[in-house]
Amino acid sequence: MKTPGIALLVVLAFITAADASDPLPSWNDSTKKAAIVNFVEKVTREGSPDFVPPAERIAVFDNDGTLWAEQPMYFQAFFIFDRIKTLAPQHPEWKDKEPFASVLKGDLKAALAGGEHSLLEMAMATHAGMNTEEFEKIVTDWIATARHPVTKKPYTDMVYQPTLELLDYLRANNFKTFIVSGGGIEFMRPWAEKTYGIPPEQVIGSSIKTKFEMLDGKPVIVRLPELNYIDDKAGKPAAIQHHIGRRPLMAFGNSDGDLQMLQWTAAGTGPRLCVYIHHTDAEREYAYDRDSHIGKLDKGLDEAVSKGWTVVDMKDDWSAIWPDRK
Amino acid sequence: MKTPGIALLVVLAFITAADASDPLPSWNDSTKKAAIVNFVEKVTREGSPDFVPPAERIAVFDNDGTLWAEQPMYFQAFFIFDRIKTLAPQHPEWKDKEPFASVLKGDLKAALAGGEHSLLEMAMATHAGMNTEEFEKIVTDWIATARHPVTKKPYTDMVYQPTLELLDYLRANNFKTFIVSGGGIEFMRPWAEKTYGIPPEQVIGSSIKTKFEMLDGKPVIVRLPELNYIDDKAGKPAAIQHHIGRRPLMAFGNSDGDLQMLQWTAAGTGPRLCVYIHHTDAEREYAYDRDSHIGKLDKGLDEAVSKGWTVVDMKDDWSAIWPDRK
Repeated sequence: MKTPGIALLVVLAFITAADASDPLPSWNDSTKKAAIVNFVEKVTREGSPDFVPPAERIAVFDNDGTLWAEQPMYFQAFFIFDRIKTLAPQHPEWKDKEPFASVLKGDLKAALAGGEHSLLEMAMATHAGMNTEEFEKIVTDWIATARHPVTKKPYTDMVYQPTLELLDYLRANNFKTFIVSGGGIEFMRPWAEKTYGIPPEQVIGSSIKTKFEMLDGKPVIVRLPELNYIDDKAGKPAAIQHHIGRRPLMAFGNSDGDLQMLQWTAAGTGPRLCVYIHHTDAEREYAYDRDSHIGKLDKGLDEAVSKGWTVVDMKDDWSAIWPDRK
Repeated sequence: MKTPGIALLVVLAFITAADASDPLPSWNDSTKKAAIVNFVEKVTREGSPDFVPPAERIAVFDNDGTLWAEQPMYFQAFFIFDRIKTLAPQHPEWKDKEPFASVLKGDLKAALAGGEHSLLEMAMATHAGMNTEEFEKIVTDWIATARHPVTKKPYTDMVYQPTLELLDYLRANNFKTFIVSGGGIEFMRPWAEKTYGIPPEQVIGSSIKTKFEMLDGKPVIVRLPELNYIDDKAGKPAAIQHHIGRRPLMAFGNSDGDLQMLQWTAAGTGPRLCVYIHHTDAEREYAYDRDSHIGKLDKGLDEAVSKGWTVVDMKDDWSAIWPDRK
């Protein structure tokens, strides 16, 4: 074998240097990657007409379908089903009561036939009745052991490597990164910091009501079986205002449920960037948009095209989908 | 005049050095100051058995009576009265309708005779009906021009110098500082960052409902005349859990309305510090506790004594009350 020539060594050194300095290595070079990087550079460059002070650098991310996968069903729904199975011995009446009976028979499609109402009923039966510390432990234990029904991987391994890189990149540029999800706020917090580097105070989600009380002299916050807030669609910008009180500079979503969040972001003065993640990769992940039963992207896709928002094509724009965890 | 001797110079140099390194110069040396400094040193010292990682260093502060004054009446009530006077021409019916009629006649005591119900009615009439950006501008304009009825100072000058120093000191030690107030969340945010260094996403308060909608193609968040949440008493720990999702390490309050927040903080595992600011200085500020019509400190004082919480005596423990703004 010949030793490599000087020219080849120089080229190799150059490639290595380029890779080392690329904050988004799992993003193929494309107009989409360029749009994100150019935006970040322009708002962070001192003296730039578009410069934004660090305190105002807010980036919001949907969770299901944007930071982690959401097929064949929202992962929180699998948590609900598992909880129903675990709690069934204490609820003999569930054997004959829908939608619980279908879950116990393993017929998840039938369990979800009642739509949102059924899901809500199951959520209340499994997410309420304990205090906040107990619920945190239930979620922590579940996420550590549960496996995705198709890939058999832990759910926290089914996060997208390119958006993990994006979160790190934005934080390195003094952005505060927030989750704004239709998922349960207390379902996400126990693992969001370890998985995404997003602390609990930067997680916004749907919630049930709670009540502070003294129990045998010990203060507890009890979770009540009553809906407090649905953080989806028009609920997203309102929740952003309530929790953050400042309009985001950047917003990332993947479905029509994120459209109002992107509209609210785009309508701010000065530079703003709205990004849709388009699920186009049936081989490495899933391909779905206008007709999907989950994460439907229809009106949002039309508006993204007409407004010139950034639409990331997972198949073409991402060189890797999943983190390399062995 | 004799030149000062070497000994005096050494003493002067020592005093100057000590002052320069004291992060809390407006706090007299006392067991209260020592309790705060010792706590911060122990939770931030690497290798200490009480060490707490920066991400978990959460400190919560009540606002009215803890960060700024609250006598002779909550400052937000003066905002409400001023708004009623400003809006009166558009509401001729207010001339004959209580509590508005009394406000317009300048009889604030009569206006507040209806208690919480009256205050709420006036809050809804003045805090709703516009969008969030419009309300922010109303508050910003008011806080820049309004003056306290007794001192004639801007309200943002009626903040406590010792707690300003405390906020800086905690942030220098990688604490995240939050406001948790019964006051309106959107009433505090427009000036909290400039006044306290607390960004809007770290302000928690009472709120009314809002609604996202498209108005002539422009997305707005409209403020509705409907109560969403009262962030007082048992509402405080529940709001802390909802917004922060993590139990505070330190909590500062001044009234029974803060008691549950302090109880919740104290009940956490590991080191916690609960502090009450006791209004004892009738000369420089106000003296009030068990019988006050505002900021009543009764049960809280008993519990602080019985639990060994830190009770700061404003008269004895603070060398300055107000910031030196000329």
